[in-house]
Amino acid sequence: MTKIIKKIGVLTSGGDAPGMNAAIRSVVRTCAYHDIECVGIYRGYQGMIEGDFKEMGPRSVNNIVNKGGTILKSARSKDFITPEGRQKAHQNLIDAGINALVVIGGDGTFTGAEIFNHEFGYPVMGIPGTIDNDIFGTTHTLGFDTALNTVVEAIDKIRDTASSHNRLFFVEVMGRDAGHIALNAGIGAGAEEILIPEENLGLERLLESLQRSKASGKSSSIVVVSEGDKIGKNVFELKEYVEENLPEYDVRVSVLGHMQRGGAPSCFDRVLASRLGVKAVESLLEGKSNYMVGLQQDRVVLTPLEQAIKGSSRIDEELLRVSEIMTT
Amino acid sequence: MTKIIKKIGVLTSGGDAPGMNAAIRSVVRTCAYHDIECVGIYRGYQGMIEGDFKEMGPRSVNNIVNKGGTILKSARSKDFITPEGRQKAHQNLIDAGINALVVIGGDGTFTGAEIFNHEFGYPVMGIPGTIDNDIFGTTHTLGFDTALNTVVEAIDKIRDTASSHNRLFFVEVMGRDAGHIALNAGIGAGAEEILIPEENLGLERLLESLQRSKASGKSSSIVVVSEGDKIGKNVFELKEYVEENLPEYDVRVSVLGHMQRGGAPSCFDRVLASRLGVKAVESLLEGKSNYMVGLQQDRVVLTPLEQAIKGSSRIDEELLRVSEIMTT
Amino acid sequence: MTKIIKKIGVLTSGGDAPGMNAAIRSVVRTCAYHDIECVGIYRGYQGMIEGDFKEMGPRSVNNIVNKGGTILKSARSKDFITPEGRQKAHQNLIDAGINALVVIGGDGTFTGAEIFNHEFGYPVMGIPGTIDNDIFGTTHTLGFDTALNTVVEAIDKIRDTASSHNRLFFVEVMGRDAGHIALNAGIGAGAEEILIPEENLGLERLLESLQRSKASGKSSSIVVVSEGDKIGKNVFELKEYVEENLPEYDVRVSVLGHMQRGGAPSCFDRVLASRLGVKAVESLLEGKSNYMVGLQQDRVVLTPLEQAIKGSSRIDEELLRVSEIMTT
Amino acid sequence: MTKIIKKIGVLTSGGDAPGMNAAIRSVVRTCAYHDIECVGIYRGYQGMIEGDFKEMGPRSVNNIVNKGGTILKSARSKDFITPEGRQKAHQNLIDAGINALVVIGGDGTFTGAEIFNHEFGYPVMGIPGTIDNDIFGTTHTLGFDTALNTVVEAIDKIRDTASSHNRLFFVEVMGRDAGHIALNAGIGAGAEEILIPEENLGLERLLESLQRSKASGKSSSIVVVSEGDKIGKNVFELKEYVEENLPEYDVRVSVLGHMQRGGAPSCFDRVLASRLGVKAVESLLEGKSNYMVGLQQDRVVLTPLEQAIKGSSRIDEELLRVSEIMTT
Repeated sequence: MTKIIKKIGVLTSGGDAPGMNAAIRSVVRTCAYHDIECVGIYRGYQGMIEGDFKEMGPRSVNNIVNKGGTILKSARSKDFITPEGRQKAHQNLIDAGINALVVIGGDGTFTGAEIFNHEFGYPVMGIPGTIDNDIFGTTHTLGFDTALNTVVEAIDKIRDTASSHNRLFFVEVMGRDAGHIALNAGIGAGAEEILIPEENLGLERLLESLQRSKASGKSSSIVVVSEGDKIGKNVFELKEYVEENLPEYDVRVSVLGHMQRGGAPSCFDRVLASRLGVKAVESLLEGKSNYMVGLQQDRVVLTPLEQAIKGSSRIDEELLRVSEIMTT
Repeated sequence: MTKIIKKIGVLTSGGDAPGMNAAIRSVVRTCAYHDIECVGIYRGYQGMIEGDFKEMGPRSVNNIVNKGGTILKSARSKDFITPEGRQKAHQNLIDAGINALVVIGGDGTFTGAEIFNHEFGYPVMGIPGTIDNDIFGTTHTLGFDTALNTVVEAIDKIRDTASSHNRLFFVEVMGRDAGHIALNAGIGAGAEEILIPEENLGLERLLESLQRSKASGKSSSIVVVSEGDKIGKNVFELKEYVEENLPEYDVRVSVLGHMQRGGAPSCFDRVLASRLGVKAVESLLEGKSNYMVGLQQDRVVLTPLEQAIKGSSRIDEELLRVSEIMTT
Repeated sequence: MTKIIKKIGVLTSGGDAPGMNAAIRSVVRTCAYHDIECVGIYRGYQGMIEGDFKEMGPRSVNNIVNKGGTILKSARSKDFITPEGRQKAHQNLIDAGINALVVIGGDGTFTGAEIFNHEFGYPVMGIPGTIDNDIFGTTHTLGFDTALNTVVEAIDKIRDTASSHNRLFFVEVMGRDAGHIALNAGIGAGAEEILIPEENLGLERLLESLQRSKASGKSSSIVVVSEGDKIGKNVFELKEYVEENLPEYDVRVSVLGHMQRGGAPSCFDRVLASRLGVKAVESLLEGKSNYMVGLQQDRVVLTPLEQAIKGSSRIDEELLRVSEIMTT
Repeated sequence: MTKIIKKIGVLTSGGDAPGMNAAIRSVVRTCAYHDIECVGIYRGYQGMIEGDFKEMGPRSVNNIVNKGGTILKSARSKDFITPEGRQKAHQNLIDAGINALVVIGGDGTFTGAEIFNHEFGYPVMGIPGTIDNDIFGTTHTLGFDTALNTVVEAIDKIRDTASSHNRLFFVEVMGRDAGHIALNAGIGAGAEEILIPEENLGLERLLESLQRSKASGKSSSIVVVSEGDKIGKNVFELKEYVEENLPEYDVRVSVLGHMQRGGAPSCFDRVLASRLGVKAVESLLEGKSNYMVGLQQDRVVLTPLEQAIKGSSRIDEELLRVSEIMTT
């Protein structure tokens, strides 16, 4: 028999992403809407082990929908990897009367939740929050849309100076395993070339492309490079390589770094977070467990956590083609 | 027999929207990619009648992907409503060797293209560009996502002052016939109430909601109102009505106005514009005509122009529900 | 004999302005630096009467330097106008052991402080916080620089749509008694004409200017109008007047409104707030009272509150001339 | 006898800065206002040598007041270092009927102009344009204010993620020889420590400061480092050093890089550019030469180019003190 859920815990874990606060707010308010209690768990699984809890009512999430980061903080927990750690965490939840858990984060976060569910039969629901958009089962993760806007705004600025000096810029963006940020922001920023982990076009093709770009009359160039790119050289080595082989180019490097993780979320991410939070709580109340809520074909749907963890989010072939045509 | 297309004309018409320049750029570059000529037509159908044309190569659209407005300008054309005007326009296209047309705009733009196609059997393809998102056959029109971000950023600022003074603000946003901007931006901005044309909740429900909000401890309130709202009062009358009935509220009004139409497009709108431009040109080259290219279930698809014009874009029931829960 | 100051109260009053939180933070941290206690007083003078106080240490102002609005809230107090109200406020300060007061606001705020000082000999120091920049004794009030950026960003967006349609826009900006926002933002936004309270150029000159602008080949026009402009017509009447007299113009109106008061403060305002807060506290500790701290010739200086209230901040003749030349 | 000036040339040189376009616009429009011709010289001194000139009327600078970069492009010219190069440049100016020159840039730009004036008695006037604010004779260079806003906005985003993870960030900002950006943006962004070239506080003081900060309850820290800092370690080495000595800190690095040079100029920079352009042209028309126009005590004043080059812009002692107090 399914135990009736009267109190839900919510936590954020892993790298933070814009929209996490909007998701927390949505979880809290959906609980209130259904007359369920809600408890915020600080610092992810570590706070679960340490019992770092706080009751949250609808007013405790006022004015956070537009804030970057996560008011519940995030942390990596070594203790949660151990059975003892998880045992402690489970006991804390029981002691606090918390019947179910909403976890907001990425792959690692979901893996933790899945094991926890497996060991204790504890109801869990995942919300995908990471700027990398590398989660199977959702077309958009929380923070991805905001990060794209942050990146194109930064490249728009870099282009000002690139154009003024007829320079070539290598701009490194986040995405260790997935080129979603690089591909989308590269198209959006009008990059002349985009290097992503999923496609190794080779160094020669890059040189050819840059030569063609120069010949076609372009006076400046932006190459967007995913940090996980497999071309075999990082942005600084790429700079050296191009300067050796195409001495007519004045090359600069810019690594956008952690600012990509912050900032006020875009409207898209705020609305998505609100939708996912509602679905996560209501799915738990319907007795479902061990799923991730996500967006597919514009609808909010459930994907088993196990699939979300094992599957991989593919680069869209159509986008690759659009990218190629745009750099004509 | 389908005439082979060697030169495509592109124009923008109706209200401008962020992303139109990115779409122009995509049309021009896709033509270049397929070794087709491309001609920019200034000031919409009026420029077509006046023969205000300009050859466009891939370099003529450098550095416009991030610009608001439309470099081809837009205008409403009274002459195009007359058969003589359209006859003149058709002759100008033939004289210039232009074989097909991509029109970027909204309902009115598509209606013009549809009639033109009907009268002359001329190949046309539409790209939906309007911030209102009120076009059937696409989940997103160009400019909608950007406008949402503009609105939530403005409301974030208004909330600063609303919170500092414990005030109630009525914020009017664009959307004469459709509440998409109000509903999405209202959720995104954490509005306490959202008034849209599709749903007339009545004035009493508004008062009740505001009283409940005050009672629940909220110190400030934002009510987002679509300009086409059917509640029977404009924002200024709403202010008076609330001040009379809830004298404890200090009420202010803000009409966001035309700034919603401008600004650098969001990454989403730039990528969407790039995708739609590719599809529009390639569909023409495949011999298709009289369609609108749009986004459905994350895929670029074709909808007959006639359907796009007659159909209406519905408000999402799920979003309405999310909105209700978020204002708990 | 001057009483030794051990505890300072800080409040914000009147219209809120970006930078007020940075100033609160600076007052709190400067107190901590000098081992003085600091108390936040909520809702301005009203909170002083109601004893709505809160102890503030250096950590209680973490992460507010970049927030718009005021965490201490602001309110207009009718009770403080009465001697009884002020008596009550004074008693509350004494009971709480508060020896001196820093008030952040505009003319009205300073007038209250001046009377309070006069009646009770109570040490007060003012920090000018208002977006209007209409305070004598400082070249910049807190929030002015931020508001200018907000206005030019909004007009940049409006210009996108103005240029796309060859339109004329009247844009109303804040400034009931002073044209500082209109003049500076008008120059910054490249306005074709600027109407301010300090100069009534007359309607005929406006028509002439618009005709000259059209003749010179400008395809769109922005006219920035201060809300307190003395030309005798508000922006909506101006629109009608121009449409009647210059029917070739397609005219639109945009009232920017309260968003001008909000938003994250500019770096300039944050630094200025930090400087003024230090000076305000240290001046009180030096035994000074009844002054406003302000910026003159890039230095932080003191002006007697009485002068700050009575004096008026003049429009710069050089700027008027620059404005005229820029609209050539 | 002073030759009457009928045509003025304008160029940008050295690193580009936001506001350069607004200054070009001001020079062009001030020339038009005085019925003087104006010629744009592309790519700085190199374009002067190559005769890369273009006539500019008031309409040719429409819609650039808000654009980053420089429409006249910039370049470093090796040829201009040689007497032959400068001879060629001089002859080109004479051939084109250009009587005087306005150069926009930094130290190197002014040095070139000064030598040119010295050799040929040619009238020159300098406008300080560089984000570094390292020019003697002006409190603000063009682009400085904009760069500060860009930096604080980026750090605001980084703080979101720093706070969510209780991390320490080293953020490197521009300023090879001058700490103006680091000091102002550091105060504006609420940095816990600021490292600038003008002050070597030593590594031990940094460790102490960080320990004190942790002890005081701060959960995250931002250290802003000027790229020209003299502490003896770059940001990556600083990260290692702190991790070795304060293992409780999770340290990250962010190098903001070239995006600091771009972006739409702030209102302050646009207004300043407009004022400096007017003064530069009118000073030439009054027969003055070999000066830099700049801002001192809020007034536009002239400084002999020689002094501007030799002098150095000092860090403000008051600001250093404010910085120290704010990090309490």
